[in-house]
Amino acid sequence: MSRWEPDARGRLEQAAAELFAERGFDQTTVADIAARAGLTERTFFRHFADKREVLFSGQDAFQDVVVGAVAAAPGTATALEAVAAGLDAAGNALQGRASLAPQRQVIIDAHPDLQERELIKLAKVGTAMAAALHERGVAEPAATLTADTGIAVLRVAFARWLDEGVARPLPEVMRETLGELAVLYEPVPAPARVSLP
Amino acid sequence: MSRWEPDARGRLEQAAAELFAERGFDQTTVADIAARAGLTERTFFRHFADKREVLFSGQDAFQDVVVGAVAAAPGTATALEAVAAGLDAAGNALQGRASLAPQRQVIIDAHPDLQERELIKLAKVGTAMAAALHERGVAEPAATLTADTGIAVLRVAFARWLDEGVARPLPEVMRETLGELAVLYEPVPAPARVSLP
Repeated sequence: MSRWEPDARGRLEQAAAELFAERGFDQTTVADIAARAGLTERTFFRHFADKREVLFSGQDAFQDVVVGAVAAAPGTATALEAVAAGLDAAGNALQGRASLAPQRQVIIDAHPDLQERELIKLAKVGTAMAAALHERGVAEPAATLTADTGIAVLRVAFARWLDEGVARPLPEVMRETLGELAVLYEPVPAPARVSLP
Repeated sequence: MSRWEPDARGRLEQAAAELFAERGFDQTTVADIAARAGLTERTFFRHFADKREVLFSGQDAFQDVVVGAVAAAPGTATALEAVAAGLDAAGNALQGRASLAPQRQVIIDAHPDLQERELIKLAKVGTAMAAALHERGVAEPAATLTADTGIAVLRVAFARWLDEGVARPLPEVMRETLGELAVLYEPVPAPARVSLP
């Protein structure tokens, strides 16, 4: 077998997705994935640290796309508008994974350690977005607040998109969710307001 | 040494805090902590799984206090007002740890695994707040959006409170930060609005 494997990474991802669907995540080994892809385990480990890594493939690229969109928003855009641009980019990037996303989510939901990993991954995107906002001249705490609430929107919109059977474009669900968050923070008309202790 | 140790847990926490400050977290062992507290390692392990656990002591109680406050908000309170009540409770609970908080944060900031643990802890509080909002009749996605953005406010306010040398009451910093988030989500006047691609 030649050392250079054309699209080895993509073939391993495809093989893993098939096997996770057929046998379940826990019942699939790295050896199984490599065999299905027609590659060696050694090749697998050149691309992924372990089988969990396959589920988080493309994470750095995803972060770069989102943060790049925040940075590239027009200079006149507010912090919120720059984050909205980041969410558009996130939606477009994840939309490309619509065929694998529901199956992947079933695996993640069944494994608390994978849920934690997903959470940490998203928190890192949030931190990177806050840094990009800072670069744009947004002061703290606005930068972190906008970025972190943007991640909350991303999580909620993504879950909603999956719940709806990935039927709508994800960027549309992102925008809708962002709009709903804005409504939550609208001031309540005075007569309805309840004063808290 | 008797099996029943009066306030063993509190003595171990105090001993750990002293040793972490004197020698650093990495240079402190469980044996050191137990010895300083005048207790055995066996007693330590009855209270904590490892020395990292000491830093996250009271986590379940904290979550109960915050979620309890959300649940106990007046029936007429909006989702945001109920979360604000939760943040007041969180602020009051953490205020009681003002003397140990800065030192603890230095340790956490130096250890990525502890940062992840802190993040996961807060995410769980967010999930529990969302469930409490749901119980109050708040529908999705409003429940999760309000709860998750509440956690963003908590994180930012806590960091700010530490940055300011814990000089102000934490509940005040929480309320201020929540107000700043509301401003971020205020509609921008039309002429200044930038349309995004």
